[in-house]
Amino acid sequence: MGRVGYQGEPGSYSHRAVAETHPGTAAIGFDGFDAAFDALTAGDVHRLVLPIENSTTGSVLEVLDRLAAGGASIIAEHRVEVRHALLAVPGTPPSAVERVHSHPEALAQARRTLRERGWQPVLSHDTAGAIRLVAERSSPADAALGPHWAGEEHGLEVLERDVVDLAHNTTRFVVLQAGPPSIAPDADKSSIVFSTRHQPGALAEVLASLAARGADLTRIESRPGPTPWTYRFFVDLVHFPGPHGAAAVLEPAPGGTLELSHLGSYRAVVR
Amino acid sequence: MGRVGYQGEPGSYSHRAVAETHPGTAAIGFDGFDAAFDALTAGDVHRLVLPIENSTTGSVLEVLDRLAAGGASIIAEHRVEVRHALLAVPGTPPSAVERVHSHPEALAQARRTLRERGWQPVLSHDTAGAIRLVAERSSPADAALGPHWAGEEHGLEVLERDVVDLAHNTTRFVVLQAGPPSIAPDADKSSIVFSTRHQPGALAEVLASLAARGADLTRIESRPGPTPWTYRFFVDLVHFPGPHGAAAVLEPAPGGTLELSHLGSYRAVVR
Repeated sequence: MGRVGYQGEPGSYSHRAVAETHPGTAAIGFDGFDAAFDALTAGDVHRLVLPIENSTTGSVLEVLDRLAAGGASIIAEHRVEVRHALLAVPGTPPSAVERVHSHPEALAQARRTLRERGWQPVLSHDTAGAIRLVAERSSPADAALGPHWAGEEHGLEVLERDVVDLAHNTTRFVVLQAGPPSIAPDADKSSIVFSTRHQPGALAEVLASLAARGADLTRIESRPGPTPWTYRFFVDLVHFPGPHGAAAVLEPAPGGTLELSHLGSYRAVVR
Repeated sequence: MGRVGYQGEPGSYSHRAVAETHPGTAAIGFDGFDAAFDALTAGDVHRLVLPIENSTTGSVLEVLDRLAAGGASIIAEHRVEVRHALLAVPGTPPSAVERVHSHPEALAQARRTLRERGWQPVLSHDTAGAIRLVAERSSPADAALGPHWAGEEHGLEVLERDVVDLAHNTTRFVVLQAGPPSIAPDADKSSIVFSTRHQPGALAEVLASLAARGADLTRIESRPGPTPWTYRFFVDLVHFPGPHGAAAVLEPAPGGTLELSHLGSYRAVVR
């Protein structure tokens, strides 16, 4: 079945995304997105599952930029709901907790809640590391913020569920394989990146052309290009299913685009 | 002269942005963007200087979302080049450094460099805190990554300049005041946020209308709206200078928009 790479450690949300998209397959964690992409290119893993956007903290630009550089194709998307639990050694009363250990992003997503409860945030490189530390310390003053399954694996107890400031907090992952852009048989969504000449209305021209071909834009993000006043646009489009649907939208390259890259066509998962 | 609020601590890049945009004015640091916005609304500060996008890590969505909620107006923009220096107690040889302390974002921006040099990253809540810790510890094994001016204030020495993976790393700040959207006399850039009906081509229609009015898009970012398949778009536009230039672009609301909010018109700073 091969091996699937992700960024991070066992017990992380990324690890969960691998387990949900590739049950029973070996999951290999990498330290950093570059290392993960390099492993895919070298053939050490046959797929990657990487986060591409979070509803609270936004795009993962490092992944977008690596995708734009080519060599990998999106073959599927997957959403994981991010719901941090407060985890501590069994029997800990919530009032005994003084410090909450976690990844900076998780602590940021619960910043208001932590302040209201008087819990001091302590930064860890990852939620898995925070959970290990709390399990080792075995003190009721220290709790970890992270996915409940990771805490339970280390013998911790859930003191409180859903310790986040915003009710909706999901991360969208993409499944990648090496090689040129692929079009899944049931694909109804395509991801592209393109630049436009610097002239007023260039982007409007591209989007009008895509709309006229029946594509519906579900996401757009601009990034500054290599020279001043040039831009790259990352666009996700929903279209009629199947290879013909994708081709009808993408070929020939819509007027107004420069250097359009197709990042892959896959089945949309409704948020 | 009043007081200007920012998010963070003295010595941070945000603090620097206040000093550069409001020399000689009292700068008040807040813990979190919510606290800063609340102080502006309450009249405790007369302006805010907040980061809105970083070239490496992307949009500051928390600030975008608070702006979309209304009550504050962008009156200027400002760019700060983010160049982290390696700071240690005077006389430290680079080979003695084992650990590098800093804010997670700064460590992320230098991840590859740290790994190549064999320096272990240690997370702090902010660069100012990391610098204080290194100054207090006074051990050659501990260095901090942050702005050189903050290190020098604490008696640290610059061991190495520009310890970042990517050459261009700038943060764009906006200056905010309370109240309805303002149009500076020399404004040639406007920020707007709007939603569109869910129909193919709605965004293209809006952008074509803006282009026909002479506006040139310099940034676009989509955010999911409150209901599935609705979107909000944050757009920055460059146009003819002055209130007439802004009005010609924004009035009446371009066809295809729903709930357009004008976030302010101000003088563009070329990146």
